[in-house]
Amino acid sequence: MTEYKVKFLPHLKEVSVKEGASLIRAAMAAGVHINASCGGEGICGKCRVMIEKGDVGGGVSEKLSQEDIDKGYRLACLSKVNSDLVVRIPVESEIDSSVLNKMATPRKTARIKERNLEDLKEQGLFIPPVEQKYLELPEPSANDNVADVTRIVNELRSKHNEHRLEFDMSVIRKLPDVLREKDFKVTVTIARPVREEGKNHIINIESGDTTDRNYAIAVDIGTTTVYGQMVDLISGEALAQYGDFNAQISYGEDVISRIVYAEKEGGLETLNEKVVGTINKVIEKITKKSGVDPEEISTITLAGNTTMTQLFLNVNPRYIRRAPYVPAALLYPQVKAYRLGLNLPEHVTALVFPQVSSYVGGDIVAGVMGSGMGHDDELTLYMDIGTNAEIVIGNKDWLVCAACSAGPAFEGGGIKMGMRAAKGAIEDFSLDPLTLEPMNITIGNVRPKGICGSGLITMVAILFEMGVISNNGKFNRDLDTPRIRKSEGVYEYVVAWEDVSGIDRDIVLTEIDIDNLIRAKGAMYSGCMTLLKEVGMDIHAVDRIILAGGFGSFVDLEKCMVIGLLPEIDHEKVTFIGNGSLLGARMSSLTNRIRRDVGETLARMTNFEFSETASYMDHYIAALFLPHTDLNLFPKLKSRLEERKKNL
Amino acid sequence: MTEYKVKFLPHLKEVSVKEGASLIRAAMAAGVHINASCGGEGICGKCRVMIEKGDVGGGVSEKLSQEDIDKGYRLACLSKVNSDLVVRIPVESEIDSSVLNKMATPRKTARIKERNLEDLKEQGLFIPPVEQKYLELPEPSANDNVADVTRIVNELRSKHNEHRLEFDMSVIRKLPDVLREKDFKVTVTIARPVREEGKNHIINIESGDTTDRNYAIAVDIGTTTVYGQMVDLISGEALAQYGDFNAQISYGEDVISRIVYAEKEGGLETLNEKVVGTINKVIEKITKKSGVDPEEISTITLAGNTTMTQLFLNVNPRYIRRAPYVPAALLYPQVKAYRLGLNLPEHVTALVFPQVSSYVGGDIVAGVMGSGMGHDDELTLYMDIGTNAEIVIGNKDWLVCAACSAGPAFEGGGIKMGMRAAKGAIEDFSLDPLTLEPMNITIGNVRPKGICGSGLITMVAILFEMGVISNNGKFNRDLDTPRIRKSEGVYEYVVAWEDVSGIDRDIVLTEIDIDNLIRAKGAMYSGCMTLLKEVGMDIHAVDRIILAGGFGSFVDLEKCMVIGLLPEIDHEKVTFIGNGSLLGARMSSLTNRIRRDVGETLARMTNFEFSETASYMDHYIAALFLPHTDLNLFPKLKSRLEERKKNL
Repeated sequence: MTEYKVKFLPHLKEVSVKEGASLIRAAMAAGVHINASCGGEGICGKCRVMIEKGDVGGGVSEKLSQEDIDKGYRLACLSKVNSDLVVRIPVESEIDSSVLNKMATPRKTARIKERNLEDLKEQGLFIPPVEQKYLELPEPSANDNVADVTRIVNELRSKHNEHRLEFDMSVIRKLPDVLREKDFKVTVTIARPVREEGKNHIINIESGDTTDRNYAIAVDIGTTTVYGQMVDLISGEALAQYGDFNAQISYGEDVISRIVYAEKEGGLETLNEKVVGTINKVIEKITKKSGVDPEEISTITLAGNTTMTQLFLNVNPRYIRRAPYVPAALLYPQVKAYRLGLNLPEHVTALVFPQVSSYVGGDIVAGVMGSGMGHDDELTLYMDIGTNAEIVIGNKDWLVCAACSAGPAFEGGGIKMGMRAAKGAIEDFSLDPLTLEPMNITIGNVRPKGICGSGLITMVAILFEMGVISNNGKFNRDLDTPRIRKSEGVYEYVVAWEDVSGIDRDIVLTEIDIDNLIRAKGAMYSGCMTLLKEVGMDIHAVDRIILAGGFGSFVDLEKCMVIGLLPEIDHEKVTFIGNGSLLGARMSSLTNRIRRDVGETLARMTNFEFSETASYMDHYIAALFLPHTDLNLFPKLKSRLEERKKNL
Repeated sequence: MTEYKVKFLPHLKEVSVKEGASLIRAAMAAGVHINASCGGEGICGKCRVMIEKGDVGGGVSEKLSQEDIDKGYRLACLSKVNSDLVVRIPVESEIDSSVLNKMATPRKTARIKERNLEDLKEQGLFIPPVEQKYLELPEPSANDNVADVTRIVNELRSKHNEHRLEFDMSVIRKLPDVLREKDFKVTVTIARPVREEGKNHIINIESGDTTDRNYAIAVDIGTTTVYGQMVDLISGEALAQYGDFNAQISYGEDVISRIVYAEKEGGLETLNEKVVGTINKVIEKITKKSGVDPEEISTITLAGNTTMTQLFLNVNPRYIRRAPYVPAALLYPQVKAYRLGLNLPEHVTALVFPQVSSYVGGDIVAGVMGSGMGHDDELTLYMDIGTNAEIVIGNKDWLVCAACSAGPAFEGGGIKMGMRAAKGAIEDFSLDPLTLEPMNITIGNVRPKGICGSGLITMVAILFEMGVISNNGKFNRDLDTPRIRKSEGVYEYVVAWEDVSGIDRDIVLTEIDIDNLIRAKGAMYSGCMTLLKEVGMDIHAVDRIILAGGFGSFVDLEKCMVIGLLPEIDHEKVTFIGNGSLLGARMSSLTNRIRRDVGETLARMTNFEFSETASYMDHYIAALFLPHTDLNLFPKLKSRLEERKKNL
């Protein structure tokens, strides 16, 4: 796709964007602030810019007079980049450029790294877990009246060198009629064993040649959110994705409160029904979105933390929350999906990712396997940022892991106006340091409805770096702006007034929200530090960081370092894999190599219980500041803050 | 147990019987006729005998005057043999002894041969399919907080040398609580793989030591009758048995009419429900009778013909009845019993015996495997006498098999007063050749309610040999007895008048019944002859005959030869294994050797379709007489009939 250069005046900042990109997002990417509070829907009319050179598509609005339009004014949020541009930010939106240049570093987005089918094939890791074969069978006769199953077995043996075949009962049930639908021309779906000595299961049979259509579903069962993808097993692509809140949420926000509820009379059954219901909703959505016939789905792979996994499988999680924290099982057998209550055809096999311990679950195992970190020489720090946050450190020789309860802040939970990364969520933010007016960018460019994880991190980082909030997370009481106010005894910043919000009230960020974020990032950071210390290393030994989590489509690494979620390391060393659990589930539906290796990887993985690790609490308390009680751990931020002080 | 000698006068016949045996049964065993029509309940008072020497228990009745009693008269049916006896059959019951001696040869019961656990162990064929292990596990601690499943796996590996373990989901679900019920002392049930490289499945877990209680259920799914046994896996004994009519009967008597019904809208579902319902009833009865806790049942093994198997598994049998007669499958996967609708705990595994072809099913495979005929050098003829009759000939090197539709006569079906071998069924019969008065012996010694298979064979054989019916199965119209009459245009013999019967009418044997039996035995006999001819052999090459079938507790071989069901061979060469299908199912629940060998046995088995074998119909038509159109095939009977003619 064509890329165009956009130069912003008077800042002299330049950025390359794809054809058709929104001009306001181009400004955000360049680190140029434009007042914009309506999320990019063209309602507030504040984001006026003058196009000095080049052409934009759209950008006109009743908020602009004809005279303005004739002069070249456009609304940045409605403008699409269609050529190289020179854009001037007009006086009313401009701030002192010398200050600006010091503050708003262009966003450093982590490289997004998703392994795909081609990678697997290149790396020799491709062992298809499900394959289809088209057969043209001889029709039965008096001299050849073997059983229908035998006819297929004979053909597979003699012409396709397939052995150790076993038919599912559901296949046998439909076999006689399906065989005769198109004159004994059929497509069989073969599920491969994880180990070579295992059986090849014939899990489906369809009449005619359907070898061009074969699908799998990958699901991440999160404590807060459940994500699903429809995976095309032939191209390896995710055809559709959908996420929804786990309906268990009304029974408790974290795993501990879910376990407490599960222990009540009928509680386990209720929580099981709720999560199965959510997964079914996700399955329905991605099936509809992708237009896949459910009969063409072969498998579903699910990954979740230990508690989520046990609740999904209807296994009492009672002992997970009691010392010595014993899960029921690490590995679960394959079962038919419908037996777990999933609305999928009888032939669909369900695979659940194995666990490491009560607090290092299948989601992290999926992420580790999906990211391939267990195969590399490099020392990798894997961080899964979510309600139950997990950390893994290691390489192909050793792995250590631990979990810490970060709370749901990263997923928008426990935040007054928090929401998950869906349409209307503020996912990016900038601030005019003089007027304290915001620049809100929402997912879908619609009026803001709330704040998602990435928006929250960015907002807190910028407000902190600009001095609006102090290192203990409290608003500067001296600032003169109506956007900072006290409501019901709590200080808050108004991100979007009701008249431009997509809901019936102001969208705010409160000190309680900030406190929740600080505790969440503190748990993650201290987890990394504790684990590194336990293996006798420090952060400089880490060759790369893999970030996983349901942040939406990107993470601003710089902002993560400002709030002290990540240590300050070279951006190039960080990759972002998005939802690691979902990635692992998808990879596992593409190659059996994942399932083959998982046992061996689990065996190499040493689990630390932070509740048994004395230094964890010390690290945690030290991390309950922005970015940390010891600012020297963040030298770049320290120098920027000192520079800023000088300039004020 | 003590045996006593009973001598009958004036016949001078002697028989040895066990202490406490019924005197009327002793007479029957000795071939001595005593008029007795009430089945042995003491109602008709006809079976008066005089005890000349020795003592009997009981035998007195209001049917005898005090004077008679003082003289030594007793009712034979109520008398128990308690010492050596000399018993005189009084004049009114007596017939000319010279004739009698020619006629009523003592009954030749086939040796009953049931393989049991001890045999298997002696023969080195014992590979327990299910075993229990008692474990005393270390309790979890902070330093040892492995998953519950891992704890068990570790113990089984290190202390019991158990490997390749896989846990059922149902076990994992109850594991956490069961482990903690008795301080981590548990018994696990391990289902062994058929092949060594397979997995050992942990199918159950119970708290404490329950290794002394482990049970299996064996079921024969017959077209007419379903039998079940509760098998003690430790002793190998059948603790309880129960049989009931297959509730599918109201939808057709034979497999063809069932298939026709199954093809109707909802027909398959109905027939499936009916047979599953019958099996559930059988399971309930044997569980109650044996006092076994259902949780202690580990497996259920079921055997049935191909149609019954497909109907039970909900697999459309449509193509079984259409040329070229193709079954859906020969081998079926193991599944959990509850998934087939059986009322058994979730952990119970169901195994279904494999089939050979559309008309040689799992029942016959079970019989062949259970009888062990496939391991012997001897040439064996295996006959399963039932609605769908099957014949197997061969030895350890080769096996041929075929099926013929005999109809339900052997199981009491299609017979006016037919019933299965249950309480009140006339199972044995004798005739006074002069008065044509019967001697009826019923199962349970109660008033007769009907006629079961063995009773029918004996009745027709005796009536034929005594000249009451001719070789075309018609009653001799010249005989002067009220017992032979024409009713609704059909000639019949009154076996028991209403006043001594256990039902509200006379019990009769009609010419239609006789015709049905002739066609049934004709189908069996011609099947044997056709199959022998196809392999280029005749009946003299056969080293032994194994009879199987639901006849009740015995078969009178002599009578089977009289009607032409069996060829005339040395009685010693015949063994009777009862319900072969049930035997095979029981043996398979005792040793995996059966399941291990069955594939190899199936591979050696050549199936003949009589519908494709021209000589079958010729053999069949020739066999539609008593005993056969060619009496020279039955030389012993021929000489007896000639002797009889001379004496008349």
